[in-house]
Amino acid sequence: MAGCGETLYGARISRGFWSAFRETVVREGIPYQWKALNDELPDAEPSHCMRNFRIAAGKEQGEFGGFVFQDSDVAKWLEGVAYSLRWHPDKQLEALADGAIQAVVDAQQPDGYMDTYYIIGGLDKRWTNLKDHHELYVAGHMIEAAVAYYRATGKRVLLDAVLRLVDHISKVIGPEDGKLHGYPGHPVIEMALMRLYEVTGDEKHLRLAEYFVRERGRLPLYFEQEDQKNGNGFYWKDSPFRYQYYQAGLPFMEQKAAEGHAVRAMYLYCGAADVARHSGDEALAAVCRRLWENTVAKRMYVTGAVGSSEYGEAFTFDYDLPNDTVYGETCAAIGLVFFARRMLALEKKGEYADVMERALYNGVISGMQLDGKKFFYVNPLEVLPEACRMDAHKRHVKPERQKWFGCACCPPNLIRLLASLEDYLYSADGDDVYVHLYAGGSVRFEANWKPVRLSVRTNYPWEGDVALAVETERPVAFTLNLRVPGWCRNYAVSVNGEPVEAEVRDGYLALNRRWEDGDEVGLALDMPVRLVRANPRVRADVGCVAVSRGPIVYCLEESDNGRDLQMLRLDGATSADFNVEWRPDKLGGIVELTCQGARESDEAFDGALYSAEAEVRQAPCDLTFIPYYSWANREVGEMRVWVRER
Amino acid sequence: MAGCGETLYGARISRGFWSAFRETVVREGIPYQWKALNDELPDAEPSHCMRNFRIAAGKEQGEFGGFVFQDSDVAKWLEGVAYSLRWHPDKQLEALADGAIQAVVDAQQPDGYMDTYYIIGGLDKRWTNLKDHHELYVAGHMIEAAVAYYRATGKRVLLDAVLRLVDHISKVIGPEDGKLHGYPGHPVIEMALMRLYEVTGDEKHLRLAEYFVRERGRLPLYFEQEDQKNGNGFYWKDSPFRYQYYQAGLPFMEQKAAEGHAVRAMYLYCGAADVARHSGDEALAAVCRRLWENTVAKRMYVTGAVGSSEYGEAFTFDYDLPNDTVYGETCAAIGLVFFARRMLALEKKGEYADVMERALYNGVISGMQLDGKKFFYVNPLEVLPEACRMDAHKRHVKPERQKWFGCACCPPNLIRLLASLEDYLYSADGDDVYVHLYAGGSVRFEANWKPVRLSVRTNYPWEGDVALAVETERPVAFTLNLRVPGWCRNYAVSVNGEPVEAEVRDGYLALNRRWEDGDEVGLALDMPVRLVRANPRVRADVGCVAVSRGPIVYCLEESDNGRDLQMLRLDGATSADFNVEWRPDKLGGIVELTCQGARESDEAFDGALYSAEAEVRQAPCDLTFIPYYSWANREVGEMRVWVRER
Repeated sequence: MAGCGETLYGARISRGFWSAFRETVVREGIPYQWKALNDELPDAEPSHCMRNFRIAAGKEQGEFGGFVFQDSDVAKWLEGVAYSLRWHPDKQLEALADGAIQAVVDAQQPDGYMDTYYIIGGLDKRWTNLKDHHELYVAGHMIEAAVAYYRATGKRVLLDAVLRLVDHISKVIGPEDGKLHGYPGHPVIEMALMRLYEVTGDEKHLRLAEYFVRERGRLPLYFEQEDQKNGNGFYWKDSPFRYQYYQAGLPFMEQKAAEGHAVRAMYLYCGAADVARHSGDEALAAVCRRLWENTVAKRMYVTGAVGSSEYGEAFTFDYDLPNDTVYGETCAAIGLVFFARRMLALEKKGEYADVMERALYNGVISGMQLDGKKFFYVNPLEVLPEACRMDAHKRHVKPERQKWFGCACCPPNLIRLLASLEDYLYSADGDDVYVHLYAGGSVRFEANWKPVRLSVRTNYPWEGDVALAVETERPVAFTLNLRVPGWCRNYAVSVNGEPVEAEVRDGYLALNRRWEDGDEVGLALDMPVRLVRANPRVRADVGCVAVSRGPIVYCLEESDNGRDLQMLRLDGATSADFNVEWRPDKLGGIVELTCQGARESDEAFDGALYSAEAEVRQAPCDLTFIPYYSWANREVGEMRVWVRER
Repeated sequence: MAGCGETLYGARISRGFWSAFRETVVREGIPYQWKALNDELPDAEPSHCMRNFRIAAGKEQGEFGGFVFQDSDVAKWLEGVAYSLRWHPDKQLEALADGAIQAVVDAQQPDGYMDTYYIIGGLDKRWTNLKDHHELYVAGHMIEAAVAYYRATGKRVLLDAVLRLVDHISKVIGPEDGKLHGYPGHPVIEMALMRLYEVTGDEKHLRLAEYFVRERGRLPLYFEQEDQKNGNGFYWKDSPFRYQYYQAGLPFMEQKAAEGHAVRAMYLYCGAADVARHSGDEALAAVCRRLWENTVAKRMYVTGAVGSSEYGEAFTFDYDLPNDTVYGETCAAIGLVFFARRMLALEKKGEYADVMERALYNGVISGMQLDGKKFFYVNPLEVLPEACRMDAHKRHVKPERQKWFGCACCPPNLIRLLASLEDYLYSADGDDVYVHLYAGGSVRFEANWKPVRLSVRTNYPWEGDVALAVETERPVAFTLNLRVPGWCRNYAVSVNGEPVEAEVRDGYLALNRRWEDGDEVGLALDMPVRLVRANPRVRADVGCVAVSRGPIVYCLEESDNGRDLQMLRLDGATSADFNVEWRPDKLGGIVELTCQGARESDEAFDGALYSAEAEVRQAPCDLTFIPYYSWANREVGEMRVWVRER
């Protein structure tokens, strides 16, 4: 998140866990998704994306293909490419992106309008269905792509185009008389406008974002008026969330709980947090905190997944976290990372980084196959393949990742997040520099007007040791704030080999000193296996434990443990009972955990379904746990995160 | 089931548990449902039933109202009335029923056809959609009503009408050239024709039933041909069950597991068992046994509910028995009772009576409010009212019984079963008489050509003592077979106060002697509280126990135990730890069970959702269990059958 108003000017990830993932992104993900956008993937649902732009520009004949928000896939791909070019220059890819941008811009209308759905289908109908037709959503993603591409390459073609687009939007929509008093049915433009504002410094971009955040949900309700005026349908009329599906059931300032479509919720919260930070609006920040608190303390899976129900891809109610019917869309976990990062920009509290880390290492990257070529939309915590086939309530849960989706929001979202992951690691705030996440690489910043480079070596998340080296031409005073993750109970810190005492404040260990070139900081985070329990208000997890180590949540998979994972138990196990082993050849390299547990047997039932006499016998057996994110990379089978223990 | 080929000629229920239920049926249920059929219930969905008959007879103008199978509600009501008249003569009700029959018959067509949907909507379209349009289903229920009414009153009006209807059907449908080689999409006519056969002795009724059982599922598939020919839609095309929804995915003889729509499955199995018994077809009986075995050993809830999924109201797969998304339609549990009764007629094995009893005392009568005026369609084993509102996958689960339903199959099905319950208690087979279920009342039968009357006194199911008295003019030798329920581990039997030793064979204790008038048999079934566990292959029930006593399954309800029932535990409890108390004033009179258990607390979590440190503390608390069938008769709240214990 370069441009968070933070004085960082260069973070790099050059080694370790994320480096491998990002290598997959540039080597496989970006080229693969470019093929998808051009309908060149065999046996995958066609995207129609690039073709739509050609048709809209009058270069090809045909009908619009895909969803109303189809353009956004191109925008997200471009954004991802932009980020990748920052750390992985690639002239050929840049030329490809320049071409894609030209195709996008070629379709732009003289008045600045961009959206191939209406350009092809009829411009007279544009802006008649802000509720469902995603024009502002597409605009938002286009703005994000433009800002990213401009920052990465200095090229203004797309940036200039979106500036014209925003001018057009501002003429049509806004609080002034004669304009539509509308706002997007699917947020994203709020945070996009804030990124644009960070580049342009133009107050009108901040004001428009603020308008979109604050207008929604106010009475008389714009969506209701729009439906009446234009005869639009209202699909969620009989749903429990109604307009709150669109984050418009209540004015934002009155929202108290994470409700409605989970991705829309997350994206709106992001925009609100950005507006709050840039405008210093403390009341708005307080609402963001309230929604954060409800999300992470009542409605978030242990993997960082959010959105309990497939119906509406939505939040449901407090403590309702079913593992097998969960939605947990990859995009929603990504949205939670975005939200966490923005709350962290608003205030440096380790709890935000904890959740960011939880989602990143678990519910986000579970969305991608290790080879970067297949994706999960839904990220379940318990899977029985038979149930996915035979139980209609679990049909949305897939036991294997898919090649592509008709609604392909998740794959490019993964790319743009992973490609920009270095923006999530550090913050600088005056003479405070923060390390939120530990990844091998470096960051440059200014402290007391002096340039400093901090380099990081670590085998995180597999090991808890982090070595940080300061490079500076002259000694410089600043506070190095190292996050002590919420999961870590014991840690030690040293400077140049000497143990130091330092205070942990809001999750950060503050090392305030006059740093000299070559100073070495050693942080040793004790990383035992942890047996995590859910609050017993969570019905789905009672009596169970989630095995975790460091930021990684583990799971049982059929490939290692056989079938009927519900019959496996881990009673009375402690951290010390686990064997922790680095398995370089397994699943791309993982730390595997094994432990003696027990397997229940139904032998005593003698084929009966119920019995008051039959004892549920159990016999010791070895349980093998793999990182949750790495599941479903072998044969199709059962998986389970929450293991029975009491 | 008078007319099972069994030499019983009169069973009565005159006291005790069922007597009270049946009193509700005649006092409340029958009049209430008559109002429903005549659209006279305030605030309830209209039935349109009687109006449809008037319109079809040309006595009123208007459109057909309701579902294509709407006529069947009248048939089921008439059948229930017929049974009630056997033990509760009521001239006024009989006159009402005579009038309803006349209305039905007035709408019959000259060629024998009966079905107001097509009579009103256009006879040219009849028999074009056997798959979905329920003409044969309606005919089946009409036949059952006719046979029941004829047997109860000797009146032939409806019987003669359905004989004409069956003749008409036989001209249109059947294996012969020139006829439609079809069969019903919703079975019931198979068992109805067998009842008709028991009255008429006419082989063609047996043959038609047998044809319907054996033709379905054969290739080329009639439904597929019918769809093509008539342009009918196929709603279940993309479902996992496809034609098996209709019990037509496989020929009956090849079926191996309970699949598809649960009520259709049960009804078909009933017809098949009847045909097998009357035709002595051992291969057919073997298939019935195989499907029985799969149903009760792999796919039945502890309450006797069947049908795990709302989608298709259907069976899913072995051991898939979710408690909170269950369908468990009242009609399906009733269907299981029908099936069990027929298997019992086929062979006297206690396991059939065990299941019949399980369903009757639990999953069947849970469908009716204690006042007989509200009904459950779906019978869940775990309910959180908030989830019914907020989770789309649980919207079919209601926390309160409803007044009536657009598709009102369940309420009249309950009436016809409860009103004929005496038919389920006894069998006679040569000189063997069987008591399957214990209820205060009597039965008359012939043994060695001598009339015998057996009277039963018991406070079953609340107490396990049963007293049976023989009345006979002359001493007579026969075997009195008394069922020892599967749940009973200890029992004692005496004759005239003297303990006797007797063998238990296939679940029945056989007392073979020369009986004299006034002989008294005492059966003492030990009825401790039982802690029933599910086979651990049942994911939904692992680590839990279902508290039971005698045939009654118990549950926890919020009214007695507060909220968050998932936090209640019953570790290490034994039968002896329960207090068993008769509560005459509670829920219509129940035996209530209380026990010290524990309530978990989330205190140590201090508001956190997940923790590796927080201990899930627990404190002792009293748990109060009420019979499952009596839940949801107080305020709306949580309910849970399976209680955590390990």
